[in-house]
Order: sequence, then structure tokens, then C-alpha cells
Amino acid sequence: MTIQPLHQLNVDLGDRSYPIFIGHHILDNHQLISDYIQGSSAVIVSNTTVAPLYLDKVSQALELANIRYDSVILPDGETFKTLASVELIIDTLLKKRHDRKTTLIALGGGVVGDITGFAAAIYQRGVNFIQIPTTLLSQVDSSVGGKTGVNHPSGKNMIGAFYQPQCVIADTHTLETLPDRELSAGLAEVIKYGLIHDEKFFDWLETNIEKLMQKDYQLLSHAILVSCQTKAEIVAIDEKESGIRAILNLGHTFGHAIESAMGYGNWLHGEAVATGMVMALDLSERHHWIGPEVKQRTIQLLKNAHLPVKSPPQISPEQYMDYMSIDKKVDRGVIKFVLLKSLGKAIITADYDSALLTQTLSES
Amino acid sequence: MTIQPLHQLNVDLGDRSYPIFIGHHILDNHQLISDYIQGSSAVIVSNTTVAPLYLDKVSQALELANIRYDSVILPDGETFKTLASVELIIDTLLKKRHDRKTTLIALGGGVVGDITGFAAAIYQRGVNFIQIPTTLLSQVDSSVGGKTGVNHPSGKNMIGAFYQPQCVIADTHTLETLPDRELSAGLAEVIKYGLIHDEKFFDWLETNIEKLMQKDYQLLSHAILVSCQTKAEIVAIDEKESGIRAILNLGHTFGHAIESAMGYGNWLHGEAVATGMVMALDLSERHHWIGPEVKQRTIQLLKNAHLPVKSPPQISPEQYMDYMSIDKKVDRGVIKFVLLKSLGKAIITADYDSALLTQTLSES
Repeated sequence: MTIQPLHQLNVDLGDRSYPIFIGHHILDNHQLISDYIQGSSAVIVSNTTVAPLYLDKVSQALELANIRYDSVILPDGETFKTLASVELIIDTLLKKRHDRKTTLIALGGGVVGDITGFAAAIYQRGVNFIQIPTTLLSQVDSSVGGKTGVNHPSGKNMIGAFYQPQCVIADTHTLETLPDRELSAGLAEVIKYGLIHDEKFFDWLETNIEKLMQKDYQLLSHAILVSCQTKAEIVAIDEKESGIRAILNLGHTFGHAIESAMGYGNWLHGEAVATGMVMALDLSERHHWIGPEVKQRTIQLLKNAHLPVKSPPQISPEQYMDYMSIDKKVDRGVIKFVLLKSLGKAIITADYDSALLTQTLSES
Repeated sequence: MTIQPLHQLNVDLGDRSYPIFIGHHILDNHQLISDYIQGSSAVIVSNTTVAPLYLDKVSQALELANIRYDSVILPDGETFKTLASVELIIDTLLKKRHDRKTTLIALGGGVVGDITGFAAAIYQRGVNFIQIPTTLLSQVDSSVGGKTGVNHPSGKNMIGAFYQPQCVIADTHTLETLPDRELSAGLAEVIKYGLIHDEKFFDWLETNIEKLMQKDYQLLSHAILVSCQTKAEIVAIDEKESGIRAILNLGHTFGHAIESAMGYGNWLHGEAVATGMVMALDLSERHHWIGPEVKQRTIQLLKNAHLPVKSPPQISPEQYMDYMSIDKKVDRGVIKFVLLKSLGKAIITADYDSALLTQTLSES
């Protein structure tokens, strides 16, 4: 029996549109992969944690479809999200004579997806790629929207491109092997969609957070669907992040500073975003844009998802300012923040009181 | 007195359209540069040969317009067209706190343009850039069409992106300091436009080749204009090289093999293309698509432009095949060639007689 996806969603970007398939055990549906490979060769990129678990499934799909393939297995972790990893992929592509009709397949979390997508964007000026995100974070976030890239010692995601995949295959079965800490990190981004865009979804999350933490796959599928829908909707309006798309970065300006200050990989991205969101809500509250109950409910929900809500005490306000001033959302020296005007409504603004920002930085 | 461009040409690519300005001493027209800078900062990328000659002119334009700038001076030569040079630019951008509103300015030949354009394409997922090509080759070729990128030890231009500049400023005055050998290399690409698209232009080149070699700036401006027009027309139809654009690569499949086999930088790109075009014409002639006079006239014109027309004897047919099989125009293992159906009409085809190819490789 072929397992059909529970949900299919189309990301509408003109001639760069692509589908997202969401379902349980859908990696066993071999055609889902092979139907989206146009040439006769492919390269699977994965990491040392994910490859032992799921590489065989993907390889089998390629073998059954008579697609020649190679694989590149990277070490696991954000510290390897570097140009050096991209070069390693490109070395393999050239050594194994993959031409511009080849397809890269990203099998892993957001790091693998970002590296692989960027390698696809720049190999021979662009080859096809497929995303198979295996973490909740990458299923709800990094696999939608075409942001690819790597880190630089001076800042996260400083090197990259906007580049869209041929399709995304999100198999909730892969979440069964996901460590709890990473499930929580993914839920931070899920909660973000409620905060920025969808009050009802926030309510739904408050109701279902326990079952989500227990990996109920039908509830997880629903959470992934709503998150991807919200993101797809926003990205379709603003693919290159010249305007509204920036609201997807709620908590990220603070969060990136935390990640940088603590050293890449010590805080998970979702953990830093969770605390960053609390800080963004704190700053919104100090402007009297939201009442204290929004931040309180959010803190409770994040705690129920086992996420950190306090800024690490060793990061001083000055250090925050220093890290945030090289954030991509800086415009002519002024740091822009994504803040809430109400629960379910975010804005990006440079029009905030810097004295209140200092309070947020020292008191969060 | 402000010096106005002799010619202005628009490259029509929808919201990525941009103008090309061609004229003598137009780098002294400061507004041409500053009008195309949207933010308040810029980084000039040049090389050790060009910077001493023209960096001051560009710096002055930025100073007069109150634009903060830094510069990166790379060593000169194709051997430095590497990811390491791109990283050097990105290190400077980050160190000097250039945000995503900055503009990169490529001041130099094709190598500087390709590296800088690629750095612009991937820095913070894309910042603006301006091309100031200072060689004939880059004025007629690499500054039009948005191909950016760097070499890999295993092949030319294997890493890159399609990325369009805000404008191109081609000052024929910069050709006065261009070594004769590089002027010739540029003329190889100019002659290519006659061969693939414009028999009358080929005739015009035969008539005017001596004055062009003497750097008559009005004739050079005309040659640049026609070349850019032809290229812009073809690129507008096929920006990402899925079809007709490939005819711009006449002579390049053979030429890239020569460049690789001889070691980057020993043969200039234009020199390798000149010989490669003779080989492509030879193969076309062996298929009886063109008569012997086309190749003979081309050889004579190339010789008048002081360009090589014979394949280096040390490259064996097997070596050619080896290098050509990793060319980007390989499709499922079959090497495609750009060949002539008549003077002024090129096609890209995999439908050739491989026995005739072997003859071309061993007898050219």
C-alpha cells in the first residue's frame, strides 16, 4: 500500500512554486521523491545523526527509479554550517561528475537544508533540490521560503541566497527519533506563527501543547500545516523580504545575538528564538502595545514546551547591541525589531524608544 | 563640463533591468556612479593593476556624494578567481559593518566583475552592485548577462549565480592602459558576436580591425555597443541559459578545455575562445554546414587581431574529451557544442558526428 500525504500545500511563487507534502511514513512513498527529480542523477546530503536512520529509505527510492546517486554525510551541528561544508558538497559533485541536471536532496534538519539549498543555488549557477526536513523546526520553518545559506564567524546566515526547492517532504515519522529538546525548539517557531499572525492558532496550541509534546502525529501534522500555510502566505507576498516577510523574524534579532554570544550550537536556534520572543514581547509591552497577559500567556506556553524564557545573565546590554548591530535587519545603523501590536499582529519597526530597549536588555 | 555617455543601452529583464553606459572618459561623470547607489555605503573591489589607475576616480565620486566606502584590492589574475577571494570581500563587508543596503562596485576586468558580482549575490542573500569593466573583454561580455562566479580546481565557473547589476559603466578611456594582448583577447569575443548573430558586423570588423587594434575609441565604442546589444537581446530571451543563450558560448567548450589543460592564466580567456571558435568552425565545416571560406575569413580576422588560431599541440584528443566532459553544457553525459549553420547563425547541438569531433580535436 502506498502511503499518501495527509496534507499537501502549494507555495505560490510563480514559476518557482512548489508543493509541501506532510504525512506519517510518507518517506516510504518512493514516487514522492522520484517524481520531482528531472535528471538522471542526484546527491543526497545528510548528517551523521540522520543518515543512519533514513538514508536507506531515500536511497531505495532513487534505486527503484534508476537514478544514479552519491551521498555526502556532514558532521551534525550548527558549527558545520559553513562555507567549508558547501565546498565539500561541491567537491563531491565535481568529482562524481554531476552535471547541471543533477538534483541535491537535503535529508536532515535546518542546517542540512540551509547548506544543501545554498550548494544547489551556487553549483553551476543553480541546480534543482528537494528538501526532506527531519526535525520539527525545519519542517515548519526553514523548508519554506527559500532562504538558504551558511554562517560566518562574525554572524549567522551572512552568506546565502534565496533559492526554492522542487518540493518539500515532511514525514512526521522522522520526529519519533527527534530528541525532546529539539522538538521543543521546533515548537518555539510554531508558537511564533500564533503570535505574529493567528490568535486562534495560539489558543489551539495552549490547549494541545501536552499532546504535541507527546508527539501525537496527527496534531503535529496540523501544527506543521498551519505553520507552513502562514509562512507560505507571507512569503508569497514578499519573497525577498523587502517588507512584511520580516515579521517571520519575531524574536530572531534578540535570538541571533544570544546564539552568537553563547557560541553557535550551545543554544538551539529555537531556544534562542523562544527567549528572543519573550524579549520582543517585553519591549512591545513597555510601549503599551500589548497588555501584560500576552507575555504571561506566552511565557507559560513556552515553559509548557520546555523552552527557556530568560536571557542568559552573562550577556550584557552592550553585548546585545554589539551583536544586533550586524543583524541583517539593520538599516543605516538603526536596528529594526519585530514587535507585537496585539496577539496575532506583528509589525517591523525602527520606531521604538531606545530607553525602553535598554530596559528590556537589562531586565529580561 | 560633465561628460555624457556616447551610448546608453537598456538590458531588459523586467524588474532586474539595468542600463549600460558606454563612452570616453565617462568615469569622470561622478553622478553616473552615485545615482545608482541606493544606500549610504559602498565597497569598491578592484585589483592591484587597476586600482592604482582608476580607484581615485571612483573614490572621488563616492566622496562627493557623501557615500561611506571601503575598498578591497585583490591580486590580479584568473588564479585568484576563487571562493577565497569572495570570502576576503565578505570578511571586509562584515568587519566594516556593511549592511544589506550597501553596494559593491566592481572596478576591473571580467575576473573582478565575476568575483564581485558573486560576492554581491551571496552577501546577506544579495546586495546591490555596479560594474565598471576596464577591459574590452569585460565591457563586451562579462558585464552583460548576470553570470557571476568563481572557479574550482576541477573546472571554470563551477560555483556561481545569475545576478544582475544596477548599472554598467564602460569607459573606453580605461582601454588606453590595457595591454595589447588583452585588447586582442577582448576582440575575440567581439568577433564571436559577428559569427553567431550578425554577418554585417563581421564584415564591419574585417574592414575596421586595424583601427580597432589602434584603440580608436569611437570605433571601439561602436563595437562595444553592438556586442552588448546582441548579448542583451539574447539574454533578455533566455536569462538563465535554458536555450538560445548557450550560443554565446561559441568556442567556449573547446576554449575552457584549453584554459584548464594549459593551467588557468597561461592562455587568456579570449585567446582560448579564439582558438576554440576556429575548432567549432572546423567541426561545423566537417559537417558541411558552412563552406571553407567562413573558417578561412575567421582565421584571417583573428590573426589580424593577433589571436592564436591553433590548438596547443600538447593537448591530446583524450585530454580534450576529459576536460570537456565536466563542462556545464554536458547533458546526461553528452557534450553539446555551439556550431555554425552559416556565418551569422549559430546553434547548440548534441547532434554531431563524434568521428568528425575526433578529427577536429586531432587536426586543429
